[in-house]
Amino acid sequence: MSGEDAAPGEPEAAEEGRRPLRTDLRPIVEAVREADAVAFVAVGDRFDDDLRYLTRFSGPDRPYALVVVPDEPVGRAVLCAPALFREQAEREFVAAARASAGEATADSTDDAEATFHDGVAREVRTESVGDHAGERAAAVVDDLVDGRGAIGSDTADRTVLASASIPHDAAVYLERAGNDLASTDAVAGARAQKTPAEVDRLRRVQRAAVAGMARAEAVLAESGVTDTADEKSKGDRRPPLRWADEPLTTERLRREVNQVLAARGVRDAGNTVIGAGPSAADLHYVGDDPIRPGETVLLDISPRGPDGYYGDVTRTFVVDGDGGWERRAYVAVEAAREAALDEVEPGVPAKTVHGEAAAELAAYGFDPNAGEGEAGFTHGTGHGVGVSLHEGPSLSGAGELRPGHVVTVEPGVYDPEIGGFRLEDLIVVTDDGYEILAEYPFGIVPEKRPDAR
Amino acid sequence: MSGEDAAPGEPEAAEEGRRPLRTDLRPIVEAVREADAVAFVAVGDRFDDDLRYLTRFSGPDRPYALVVVPDEPVGRAVLCAPALFREQAEREFVAAARASAGEATADSTDDAEATFHDGVAREVRTESVGDHAGERAAAVVDDLVDGRGAIGSDTADRTVLASASIPHDAAVYLERAGNDLASTDAVAGARAQKTPAEVDRLRRVQRAAVAGMARAEAVLAESGVTDTADEKSKGDRRPPLRWADEPLTTERLRREVNQVLAARGVRDAGNTVIGAGPSAADLHYVGDDPIRPGETVLLDISPRGPDGYYGDVTRTFVVDGDGGWERRAYVAVEAAREAALDEVEPGVPAKTVHGEAAAELAAYGFDPNAGEGEAGFTHGTGHGVGVSLHEGPSLSGAGELRPGHVVTVEPGVYDPEIGGFRLEDLIVVTDDGYEILAEYPFGIVPEKRPDAR
Repeated sequence: MSGEDAAPGEPEAAEEGRRPLRTDLRPIVEAVREADAVAFVAVGDRFDDDLRYLTRFSGPDRPYALVVVPDEPVGRAVLCAPALFREQAEREFVAAARASAGEATADSTDDAEATFHDGVAREVRTESVGDHAGERAAAVVDDLVDGRGAIGSDTADRTVLASASIPHDAAVYLERAGNDLASTDAVAGARAQKTPAEVDRLRRVQRAAVAGMARAEAVLAESGVTDTADEKSKGDRRPPLRWADEPLTTERLRREVNQVLAARGVRDAGNTVIGAGPSAADLHYVGDDPIRPGETVLLDISPRGPDGYYGDVTRTFVVDGDGGWERRAYVAVEAAREAALDEVEPGVPAKTVHGEAAAELAAYGFDPNAGEGEAGFTHGTGHGVGVSLHEGPSLSGAGELRPGHVVTVEPGVYDPEIGGFRLEDLIVVTDDGYEILAEYPFGIVPEKRPDAR
Repeated sequence: MSGEDAAPGEPEAAEEGRRPLRTDLRPIVEAVREADAVAFVAVGDRFDDDLRYLTRFSGPDRPYALVVVPDEPVGRAVLCAPALFREQAEREFVAAARASAGEATADSTDDAEATFHDGVAREVRTESVGDHAGERAAAVVDDLVDGRGAIGSDTADRTVLASASIPHDAAVYLERAGNDLASTDAVAGARAQKTPAEVDRLRRVQRAAVAGMARAEAVLAESGVTDTADEKSKGDRRPPLRWADEPLTTERLRREVNQVLAARGVRDAGNTVIGAGPSAADLHYVGDDPIRPGETVLLDISPRGPDGYYGDVTRTFVVDGDGGWERRAYVAVEAAREAALDEVEPGVPAKTVHGEAAAELAAYGFDPNAGEGEAGFTHGTGHGVGVSLHEGPSLSGAGELRPGHVVTVEPGVYDPEIGGFRLEDLIVVTDDGYEILAEYPFGIVPEKRPDAR
């Protein structure tokens, strides 16, 4: 990567970023053993994030399949890929998972070429026994299970673990081949607990996200107000801000952000949400509105990196505000953010974090249980982020925080008549607290930050 | 949209682009009637392109459901959306589908507020009878079917149409509620036949794609060769091209392209495939390679627009080539392209187009039936493009071309030892032939095009 691409001072991170990610499949094998099942099967396309996580295969847009079975020393995993994708599948699924020289592995064979970092031997099969990924998965299960002389024949029922939302036709193929399907939460559990390499990827994407934020803040700082103090005081709807000789709109601002993301090698993924005034109260606004002085401009930037990991950051600015609603909102949200972060450490029930943020917002007079379209705090305080933008753990859900959890902390308050104010950072839970993955300053009035282009 | 965003001279297109798209649901209602079914059901998340097409709802990343039933005058459609998305669902699914004033509709009621352009009344329901989209869909089917006094009670079996790949848990909810599932190709059929408004969206995205290509070509044209004629003639691996004082790589070039896409308001969607030399023979290469003089540089750009429609264009360039393999490849691929396009008109079997391209490549000495990793033509000549990058019709498949089909025409030849050469355009089949959606020049030697930034 060239000098202009890497952030200054992170050569090691750039180096680390080149090593392919690899997933430890032992929890999946263990789940199969614990359920007295014969195999785990996943079927989906490149948009299936479980498959992306399990295989690291960036995949085709038609369904493909993964089969994992217990075997000596740990297990075997077969990726059934379309023939046109063999080379890519071999590279991403098999080669990337081979143990490096001298690396201790769970696999005890002498042949270094054949070892895999987690003891799960991987192979790609493209020879098809039919066109359907579910049919191919069923055939591979048959082959691997019978080949090992395992329980039962084709006709005896045996259990296969799969996602509850596996495509129905794939489920039918598996069932017709004599498998009972049972669901498992092993994949979700594994995904929630990030490895240091995954945290590195998330940090890199989050750095790109905050670079995009810096660009947006700079554009807002450069934008001009055209009404006079006299006109402003009349309380009419004010004319839009002007930037680079044109009225500033949410779409123009979005394109500026997205260009920075592209220059950093991540994609906006359609997730650059920008609202201004009332549309800032719409949590997923991607339309085109003029941006007026005095309005809250809410920017929620969630790009996706080349390995599939997301970033997620939100800031809210006001150009030439009157210090009214947005000032109250800022003080409340800032306090809620601090209260939430103060709770974050291993062993704390996740919902405590949401509870503290909500209590703080309530103390400032905002309804902490507002419904959609009402004034107040309308959503949860945070969610996990990984190869999905929303995954476990939820900060409103069951369970305790553990080291390696990566979650957003994003209190916000909204008034459909006025606007919205949210502050969001991405944190990783550490052994004794948390770390913010990429820091970004706070403040209502937009400034040109030193590192903004 | 500001002046810098719209391409010059297309104010009407910019105007048209603001009108929300709306889908004619009559073919779905008709399929339900023809199958003697009671309803059509779809369940999926924002990555489900059928749902995107049917609802125009840009959707959440967790499952939601659509139910369509026949009713007077034509039908009813209910979108079950998460509560946090009600406003967006009302706007995108319901409001956008209302008939404009004075527009003739299939709906004969007097209340203009209540009419929909296709006579299918739309509503959003967020009140949940359970957390699962499949369970909610089953309840809505019960409600709509029983409410109309239609066939059967809760216990009598009735048929519901759905995609064969509907999530298995949703299928189980529907079956437990007394529905037999049957699959339908009505959605794929409707999607393959584009309306003028859809063609307009595709054209706009394709214009952004060719703007990205112009940027890549300009970068290649500006890139410098550092070896001398004497060094070059030695046949060693030549040093990479240099651009803006750094070695040029596929990733640097990709970021340049993706910035242009972002500036045009479309997203690269992870689909900017750039290979150089041997990696140009890898059909889905998104890695980072140095780009050397004499190598084929293959760029395949497939961005996605804000309404979900894709573009798709490929060109191949060589900087300081020796006129060897790439010249033969160019002549052959160019001839295959012409031969393929010569066949395109309504009523022609789609596979004739592929057959002509393959025959032409064979005439130039390239294997038209090469397998993956072999030298020759390794893929089909084209595929449909819409809200999926790959959809119907296939130019190697059954069926005839019809007006409104939008397909790629993309012959290419590859040699894993040398490189790849492909030319791809996106065309719409018209009443008497075809139209290229956004023209882009041809040529091996990169040039700086006038409209490239």
